[in-house]
Amino acid sequence: MYQLLDGKKISSEIKIELAAMVSKGKSEGGKTPHLAAVLVGNDGGSETYVNHKVKACEEIGFESTLLRYSDDISEDELLKVVDELNNNDQIDGFIVQLPLPKHISVDKVIEAIRPEKDVDGFHPLNYGRMASNLPAYVSATPNGIMELLKRYHIPTKGKHCVVVGRSHIVGAPVSILMARPDYPGNCTVTICNRYTDDLAKQTLQADILIVAVGSPGLITKEMVKEGAVVIDVGTTRVPDANKKSGFALKGDVIFEEVAPKTSYITPVPGGVGPMTIASLMWNTWLASRKIIFS
Amino acid sequence: MYQLLDGKKISSEIKIELAAMVSKGKSEGGKTPHLAAVLVGNDGGSETYVNHKVKACEEIGFESTLLRYSDDISEDELLKVVDELNNNDQIDGFIVQLPLPKHISVDKVIEAIRPEKDVDGFHPLNYGRMASNLPAYVSATPNGIMELLKRYHIPTKGKHCVVVGRSHIVGAPVSILMARPDYPGNCTVTICNRYTDDLAKQTLQADILIVAVGSPGLITKEMVKEGAVVIDVGTTRVPDANKKSGFALKGDVIFEEVAPKTSYITPVPGGVGPMTIASLMWNTWLASRKIIFS
Repeated sequence: MYQLLDGKKISSEIKIELAAMVSKGKSEGGKTPHLAAVLVGNDGGSETYVNHKVKACEEIGFESTLLRYSDDISEDELLKVVDELNNNDQIDGFIVQLPLPKHISVDKVIEAIRPEKDVDGFHPLNYGRMASNLPAYVSATPNGIMELLKRYHIPTKGKHCVVVGRSHIVGAPVSILMARPDYPGNCTVTICNRYTDDLAKQTLQADILIVAVGSPGLITKEMVKEGAVVIDVGTTRVPDANKKSGFALKGDVIFEEVAPKTSYITPVPGGVGPMTIASLMWNTWLASRKIIFS
Repeated sequence: MYQLLDGKKISSEIKIELAAMVSKGKSEGGKTPHLAAVLVGNDGGSETYVNHKVKACEEIGFESTLLRYSDDISEDELLKVVDELNNNDQIDGFIVQLPLPKHISVDKVIEAIRPEKDVDGFHPLNYGRMASNLPAYVSATPNGIMELLKRYHIPTKGKHCVVVGRSHIVGAPVSILMARPDYPGNCTVTICNRYTDDLAKQTLQADILIVAVGSPGLITKEMVKEGAVVIDVGTTRVPDANKKSGFALKGDVIFEEVAPKTSYITPVPGGVGPMTIASLMWNTWLASRKIIFS
């Protein structure tokens, strides 16, 4: 019988731990962690994400600041906002919610963020430090996956981890983390992409299968080894008349048929998704205590 | 019949190309590229490497400066040297030859180098930019391997590349580069380490096999697929009474028995080795023209 990797439960636990740490910190006269979020434009998804982050701050007892700009803000103006946040001692960490309007270079904005405040872990310096196994802010989704593996004590050393998808946000960093000489890590790691010849041949080798493509139903039971650990990062909105919202979130894995073959599997929703916000909160805590960049 | 990936020949070609570019640049009143190298202590290997680099500069027409310090230099003193080089407008790029004495933190020294002058590509910012497919100095050995693949027009898209070894200097960055959406790249990539269960099973899947362990004779003919491209990064000194020096350089691959099965293979010596210096020279050229960090 398989076990669920319950991201909802674990993320609640992490938030409770953080709340206790904040409360203890306050009683000792420590600084209250303060996260700022920059939101450009009116993208519905972005708005929802940012609201969740602000709400998580409230739950935990962090301070938060939401800065909103219309989508005609110029790149220079946005870079000025970043610079002000860089130099504002009250703000421990901040994020610029992606995507940005097309006239703004995401790379330029991300690299303008002081790495010490880059709690999203998107700055190349944090990425490079992570890859070099140096202290770093690891970005939310990869970090959340590592935390899930840790909290369920999933053995990783010597295991074959197959990662499907190579995005900068999930697939690529997760493949780097799982190969590191650390726990979770020390895996033989295979990273697949759209050009991979015979994907099933690769996924069938996986002791740990991490799928981050955004293609609902990609992974069938024929593609998964008996007893594998399966982590489904996909969350695609598909129309669903039975839901009040009119849509359902679908993972990349066909849960119903794959789950019985696995030892552990994440549900969608309620798996990796909730872990990402917990990771961001954790990074904000680290920033407030200057633990990564001392 | 297999073909040699002749690093000696290709690196000579690159040096000739660079010499022509320098000469053209000088005639147009451009700056002569200037590489500085910092050598601490009297390690025989380090001394040889640095001398090769200085000699390559002379061949090409670059200026070079060699700064030598005894192995009792303090970390603070070395950081001051780095800072002076950072701020010296005459120096386009510089390297601190590794290893360093144990009382000095390599990580701290590397991160003190201005990324704009980090022609070794070891700074986490360059590593992170490389991993994010942004303009970056790629470190010498991975860069040299990419250049070999390019100059021999080895197809990579959709191929399965297996990397044995996960060092920060070679295995890890090469695995990242080969998975990138670029040429060379777009491979399905598997990265193996000392804990890999059944190494032969992994290496036998390789269309492109890159071995960077430093364990002479590790790869036998039973571990290589017919027609594979094999790149041997290993260069271990083993005693050899027939050589004047008393030692021979041995790769990780048993060349005599593996070569006949391959389509392309690097010899050791004369394969990847000579490419590393060509890569460093290339990065120094880029630095002098401010092409990576504009």
